[in-house]
Amino acid sequence: MKEVNNSELDERLETVDVFLGDRSYGIQIGNRLLERLSDLMAEAGWNSKHAVLVADSQIPQLSQIVSSGLESSGWRVSTCYIPSGEGSKSVEQASRLWQQMLDSNTDRGSTVIALGGGVVGDLAGFAAATFARGLPLLQIPTTLLSQVDSSVGGKTGINLPGAKNIVGAFWQPRMVVIDLQTLNSLPHREFVSGLAEVVKYGVILLPELFEYLDTNAQSILDKQPAALSHIIAESCRAKALVVAEDERETTGRRAILNYGHTFAHALESVCGYGKLLHGEAVAIGMQMAARLALSLGRISSELVERQESLLKKLQLPVACPGGLSVEQLWKVMQHDKKVEHGKLRFILPSRMGQVELVNGIEQEAAIKAMQVA
Amino acid sequence: MKEVNNSELDERLETVDVFLGDRSYGIQIGNRLLERLSDLMAEAGWNSKHAVLVADSQIPQLSQIVSSGLESSGWRVSTCYIPSGEGSKSVEQASRLWQQMLDSNTDRGSTVIALGGGVVGDLAGFAAATFARGLPLLQIPTTLLSQVDSSVGGKTGINLPGAKNIVGAFWQPRMVVIDLQTLNSLPHREFVSGLAEVVKYGVILLPELFEYLDTNAQSILDKQPAALSHIIAESCRAKALVVAEDERETTGRRAILNYGHTFAHALESVCGYGKLLHGEAVAIGMQMAARLALSLGRISSELVERQESLLKKLQLPVACPGGLSVEQLWKVMQHDKKVEHGKLRFILPSRMGQVELVNGIEQEAAIKAMQVA
Repeated sequence: MKEVNNSELDERLETVDVFLGDRSYGIQIGNRLLERLSDLMAEAGWNSKHAVLVADSQIPQLSQIVSSGLESSGWRVSTCYIPSGEGSKSVEQASRLWQQMLDSNTDRGSTVIALGGGVVGDLAGFAAATFARGLPLLQIPTTLLSQVDSSVGGKTGINLPGAKNIVGAFWQPRMVVIDLQTLNSLPHREFVSGLAEVVKYGVILLPELFEYLDTNAQSILDKQPAALSHIIAESCRAKALVVAEDERETTGRRAILNYGHTFAHALESVCGYGKLLHGEAVAIGMQMAARLALSLGRISSELVERQESLLKKLQLPVACPGGLSVEQLWKVMQHDKKVEHGKLRFILPSRMGQVELVNGIEQEAAIKAMQVA
Repeated sequence: MKEVNNSELDERLETVDVFLGDRSYGIQIGNRLLERLSDLMAEAGWNSKHAVLVADSQIPQLSQIVSSGLESSGWRVSTCYIPSGEGSKSVEQASRLWQQMLDSNTDRGSTVIALGGGVVGDLAGFAAATFARGLPLLQIPTTLLSQVDSSVGGKTGINLPGAKNIVGAFWQPRMVVIDLQTLNSLPHREFVSGLAEVVKYGVILLPELFEYLDTNAQSILDKQPAALSHIIAESCRAKALVVAEDERETTGRRAILNYGHTFAHALESVCGYGKLLHGEAVAIGMQMAARLALSLGRISSELVERQESLLKKLQLPVACPGGLSVEQLWKVMQHDKKVEHGKLRFILPSRMGQVELVNGIEQEAAIKAMQVA
């Protein structure tokens, strides 16, 4: 286990290599990396000098840091602001972005930079994958959730009415830059929400990460750079390992990343998207999944309790918001892709650091796991 | 040289393998292949049972043959008709197609079938590349031009106002089926136009194909299956060789396919798209390029004359339509991507079956080559 060390406050703290053959890339994690972007890009062998900076409209100050830094190194920067929120992952926004790219003379020699959370990353990534049949992409995730989740894996895409992420591409970034200082402007509740995905990596793959979170919860909540850097790097490594085994979601291995997510999607849908943050729903969903595994005799109560205790310590919810109908949750889950002949499939833990896909879960068992909450 | 043999009228006549690592696929060429589609797909290991058939609205009878054949083999077929013409390569049509795919319950297990010319192939290919982040694609090109050109290479895409093919993806089909009978319903002028691209493969890469065209011009114009099958297969082989060396247009090798095309694009633009068919413009453009090469001392007049004689024999135009301003053509070419510091780059022949990218062509030489026409 790595000690939290506050002396390493500056610059790059961790590098994670994502191995995907000729699509391999590095994730740079540290402080004040936005200012040094052109150096990092030069180090990575970038020879482009025109960037399309696709930025969340709520973070103009970060966008300014990126564009000034690049411009002072001789880059031409075309900035496109994207309204915050899931609504921006639309055909209309993609179309607007393509047109802006065309109007700013974007060509094969240009680079797309995505600056923001998952929405901006998905939309800008899709534009990068499709403009001129593919441009180099630099991801700069600015929320904890996007840093530990959507910036690794190469999934990009937009929504159609009634279907999330249904149009998109697998498009790997050429580099991911995670500047810890972007987390300072993130609302605390959103920061905490992102921690749920970190706990997830612990339970599904990395017992040591789970231990680390338990031991260093306060340092993490205080956003101490060394602690943040460590948990982000470990999360990215975990996801990168899984993605490398199943880049295009063909072997089923990538499904383990959905631990807690079948319940979470139902919770988000029944509560109305946005009421419950994604990570909050995942935290509750993981508790439901763990209780389900317990009721099936797959794990002991110790794991359920350890997970609950850690989630609480990290200020995450572990129980259903009041007034939710369990029957309604079940109905929504039946529309989920994981349904087969009226029975559900779940990713369930078998011990700390290991999960399995379990088929044929009966309604009764699932409902019971949700009700205890 | 292969003899034209009219006894081979039935079924598969040629197979061309396109080698692209794990994206390799076969091109099946023959008669009455549309009726046998489900067999061909089963042979190729297809295990999908739902097809999204994207068809040109002008060929409902061919679409009917495909869907009946598949349905009688237990497939579910969702047909989407696309209006004829370049205007269908738009964000709006792509968006409509995505929505139709969603409404017909298209998922990762579905297959997209493109039935039509280049426009349908490009649009359906783009939808296949992006729906659910990528579906298997079967290309059934029904025009000679799309059979020898756009069905090989994996380029898919749509236009934005003012920019052709600017949004798209490289997405290889899993199989290409070329049914020679689809050419029977093609207007003669369009058929002849497609022959220009076949002549191109002869000049840039295959002297034997050039000879074959010269010897068998009448059989080809009479659409004798063995002759058609041979020239289509050789054209696909030539393009497949070039594409295999430069799948994503990074090495520059793919540029040789643009022989005659810088002039052709200018001609199409100045005449107004549609007035001059693409192949007609390519035929005139190749004569301009050959004359330019002659004026630079790169080839002898024999090649220019042989090319002109073959184009004429195949009923293709070799000279500019009357009333065109050469200065206007030059101006349009300067907006083309091949411009560098006011000088132009052209693909020029150095001998029969070999071309080179030549930089720094002066205005005077290019204009002279156009004027002789």
